[in-house]
Amino acid sequence: MKSDIEIARAASMKPIMDIAGTLGVPTDAVLQYGPYKAKISLDYISSLADRPDGNLILVTAMTPTPAGEGKTTTTVGLGDGLNRIGKNAIMCLREPSLGPCFGMKGGAAGGGHAQVVPMEDINLHFTGDFHAITSANNLLAALVDNHIYWGNGCAIDVRRVAWRRVIDMNDRALREIVCSLGGVANGFPREAGFDITVASEVMAILCLAMDLEDLERRLGNIVVGYTRDKTPVTAKEIEAAGAMTVLLKDALMPNLVQTLENNPAFVHGGPFANIAHGCNTVLATRTALKLAEFVVTEAGFGADLGAEKFFDIKCRKAGLKPAAAVIVATIRALKMHGGVKKEDLGQENVDAVKKGLANLGRHIRNVGQFGVPAVVAINAFTSDTEAEFRAVEDYCTELGVEAIPCTHWADGGKGTEALAKKVVELSDSGRSQFRPLYDDDLPLWDKVRTIARSIYAAEDIVADKAVRDQFRQLQDQGFGHFPICMAKTQYSFSTDPNLKGAPTGHVVAIREVRLSAGAEFIVVITGEIMTMPGLPRVPAANSIRLDEAGNVVGLF
Amino acid sequence: MKSDIEIARAASMKPIMDIAGTLGVPTDAVLQYGPYKAKISLDYISSLADRPDGNLILVTAMTPTPAGEGKTTTTVGLGDGLNRIGKNAIMCLREPSLGPCFGMKGGAAGGGHAQVVPMEDINLHFTGDFHAITSANNLLAALVDNHIYWGNGCAIDVRRVAWRRVIDMNDRALREIVCSLGGVANGFPREAGFDITVASEVMAILCLAMDLEDLERRLGNIVVGYTRDKTPVTAKEIEAAGAMTVLLKDALMPNLVQTLENNPAFVHGGPFANIAHGCNTVLATRTALKLAEFVVTEAGFGADLGAEKFFDIKCRKAGLKPAAAVIVATIRALKMHGGVKKEDLGQENVDAVKKGLANLGRHIRNVGQFGVPAVVAINAFTSDTEAEFRAVEDYCTELGVEAIPCTHWADGGKGTEALAKKVVELSDSGRSQFRPLYDDDLPLWDKVRTIARSIYAAEDIVADKAVRDQFRQLQDQGFGHFPICMAKTQYSFSTDPNLKGAPTGHVVAIREVRLSAGAEFIVVITGEIMTMPGLPRVPAANSIRLDEAGNVVGLF
Repeated sequence: MKSDIEIARAASMKPIMDIAGTLGVPTDAVLQYGPYKAKISLDYISSLADRPDGNLILVTAMTPTPAGEGKTTTTVGLGDGLNRIGKNAIMCLREPSLGPCFGMKGGAAGGGHAQVVPMEDINLHFTGDFHAITSANNLLAALVDNHIYWGNGCAIDVRRVAWRRVIDMNDRALREIVCSLGGVANGFPREAGFDITVASEVMAILCLAMDLEDLERRLGNIVVGYTRDKTPVTAKEIEAAGAMTVLLKDALMPNLVQTLENNPAFVHGGPFANIAHGCNTVLATRTALKLAEFVVTEAGFGADLGAEKFFDIKCRKAGLKPAAAVIVATIRALKMHGGVKKEDLGQENVDAVKKGLANLGRHIRNVGQFGVPAVVAINAFTSDTEAEFRAVEDYCTELGVEAIPCTHWADGGKGTEALAKKVVELSDSGRSQFRPLYDDDLPLWDKVRTIARSIYAAEDIVADKAVRDQFRQLQDQGFGHFPICMAKTQYSFSTDPNLKGAPTGHVVAIREVRLSAGAEFIVVITGEIMTMPGLPRVPAANSIRLDEAGNVVGLF
Repeated sequence: MKSDIEIARAASMKPIMDIAGTLGVPTDAVLQYGPYKAKISLDYISSLADRPDGNLILVTAMTPTPAGEGKTTTTVGLGDGLNRIGKNAIMCLREPSLGPCFGMKGGAAGGGHAQVVPMEDINLHFTGDFHAITSANNLLAALVDNHIYWGNGCAIDVRRVAWRRVIDMNDRALREIVCSLGGVANGFPREAGFDITVASEVMAILCLAMDLEDLERRLGNIVVGYTRDKTPVTAKEIEAAGAMTVLLKDALMPNLVQTLENNPAFVHGGPFANIAHGCNTVLATRTALKLAEFVVTEAGFGADLGAEKFFDIKCRKAGLKPAAAVIVATIRALKMHGGVKKEDLGQENVDAVKKGLANLGRHIRNVGQFGVPAVVAINAFTSDTEAEFRAVEDYCTELGVEAIPCTHWADGGKGTEALAKKVVELSDSGRSQFRPLYDDDLPLWDKVRTIARSIYAAEDIVADKAVRDQFRQLQDQGFGHFPICMAKTQYSFSTDPNLKGAPTGHVVAIREVRLSAGAEFIVVITGEIMTMPGLPRVPAANSIRLDEAGNVVGLF
């Protein structure tokens, strides 16, 4: 069996200019980055405003397990399938992060015969977007410390600097540091730290910005810290937003690549799916909707986190109206939710599948709460059996949704034709009545409770007085209309990663609340959220190298 | 009068494919980064090996003053001038650093009518080379701390980690930090720090590497720290070199852009000119020599630092044989060396010019020590007078070199035609008998003394016992054959920046010695060398922004 990278390397890619051509994008709107990557100019994108929108299809998933569910792979496979049945479709994916590639092996550009290419480029520097985000984030950090150093204007309290630096690297040594040591010339020593770039609020902002103007406005609203009397200080007040926008002007342009079947894909933006909203850029999605009949996109983690944020943050803010949702499930993941251990996943176990279906069922019902019709895609593995498929199909039929086995990993777009047809049918039916889960003017605390009860099936939410005070404070400061961005373990509906299946009656304890004033959401943190990963004992970096032919070895 | 950015924006650029075409580079060897930037593939470069080399012309300068000397501008102007008189010429320049653009106003892509374009791109992210270098440098740093964290193999002493992190930003808060705080999960707390990216040894290595293989070999030789018993630990020992090479594989390809007059320029690599050697990449220079009759390149700071390192490090190691050197002087700088204050530079002062000529004279004689014939380019300013020019010309004639006023800043290539003709004449004369200043097998201490006496006209060099021991140690460890990379103030032949003109009899005190085992030179530090700049009270970032038309404002 060929590896992902072998399949990717054997791809017969078309010049990216040809791919852009099939979309009707004029040559002068396409900025090439080598022969197979390009950015689409913002001027051209503006010119599309009056065109009608295509159908937006969300690919989400059941609660992830170590068995894997294949959401990106299914997004690519479905896009290829739609093109295959004669529909014009573009995929919208997230950009993978560079740093983690050097930790555990494995990229993030799909898999098998459902991949976007050039895979190595996409997983490495790509078109430099993440580097630009790192630069913009760290320019702001340097300006904050410079402001403190010179004692300029509004006096930021060194104990209350909220803005952290970022780096696109797994580097635990930078999680907690003391900076500005070494005496008068280097500033005022203070506690600080680095997050990984995808966790930067700049990343979330880039992904939600409608255009350059909106980008600059949002960057200016970032709260970088507080004065001694707790007055927030924004990036705009220290005059950072203009320069940050300049650093991001190219990064805001969507990146065009292609699938193994030469269909167009935008791979653009990649915010963390816990402390941020986990979707590709609004700009790429909106551009794709102007250029194609169908736009297939994904959201991070399971539907409790990814789809909820996609609907309640991205769609709400960008005025998007999804036509249908695909919920990816695997027999293996269902078995794990049904209590089977990873080493026993290869054996048929219909009872375990049936037991695990409670997890899938809740995700199906949850998507329904947003008024979006759904279909289940069973991402097939060779070890799956007919009886196991049947169990899923029967269960789903009872819930009024279809479950369709898909073999895109092995067969590419041919393996998702049935799924593609169903997606077209759901879209054409006009059944979607998209509505966010809660209203903008619901108090912040009540928004969190709504999510916890409706989506997680929790009994209630709890928090210490300090945290509850923070909620009230944010409400008082005028941020009450922001949506909520939940940071919760992706491995359970509850806050306990070990609670598989569909737990009920649990209580969601809120540990911390953070304001993302530029991204325009309130991050509600439950449990421990790691924003700077470390490297394992034997990092992938140890075996990554170029072979004699100049190919990258050890990355995937 | 138009500003540099206005002139640059008014440029009528040709598609970069056309520029590559005039050089005979086939389309599939050109990787476009937008319409006006490209990288040249390494495979194509390898295929040029058997071609004869063109003439290599070094542009260097007298000792710099705040009045400015215009070395990059003259390099561009001379290249345009050579093309104008019918010679095929390529310029090889250094890439500017992103970080400093947000500190003091001003980019580094030439000036007036002698610029490389697209200027904004070149000064911002360009083709991402510096980001790749930052990533490779910081991956190594993360691997070092990860190695310590897990207690893998050779036990690096946390007090003896030599490898610092880098960021392409002026950020004094990161000069000295304590990292790995926060307990067991985050590692062993230790002192650390960040340099600006151009100061990374990875930058110096990229600029000296002959090909990917040589790059990986050099990266592997980097000494990242020492064990408790002072045994050096290399990047190769912690298995970092392969992954670093993968991160740098695109960055190693030379970047092609054009001048305002549509002549080709490679802008590639930009190491610090104090703790590194301050020249563009060997690969760009060697490629240019295969593609053109004349290659005009520059070296950082004045000839005492830049030209010496260009000859003794770059040319020695890459087997380059420069045909001629251009020493840039300005009437203003000569006056400053003659004792005139900055505010009085506008007034004619022939006596001061004459007094300042001692500085230029020594640089002329120094270049002669390398066996390379020279010509002086007087970079003209509107305030210069005939009498002042005459003084320079007369003085130079006595020294057997020609001094030619050039008006490229105002007139582009037309303003350097006389200079270009002289450069062709010197090259055609076959007068160059290039030889480095010292032999490889001279002891390290004696190499430094040779530079100090021959180039700086110093009486001698001195150092504390600890530093002298270090010299002996490096010699014992087998690094005695490396060339020396002097880190000295660029504002004087001596180590005192206030000693203008041509001081003699001074003593060079060596403060520190550093091994760059990957770059393959020994850095000898005199005085305070700043490897992480700070931002001024009112940084340029405060006024940088995009205007309504999407143009960058405030950067230049």
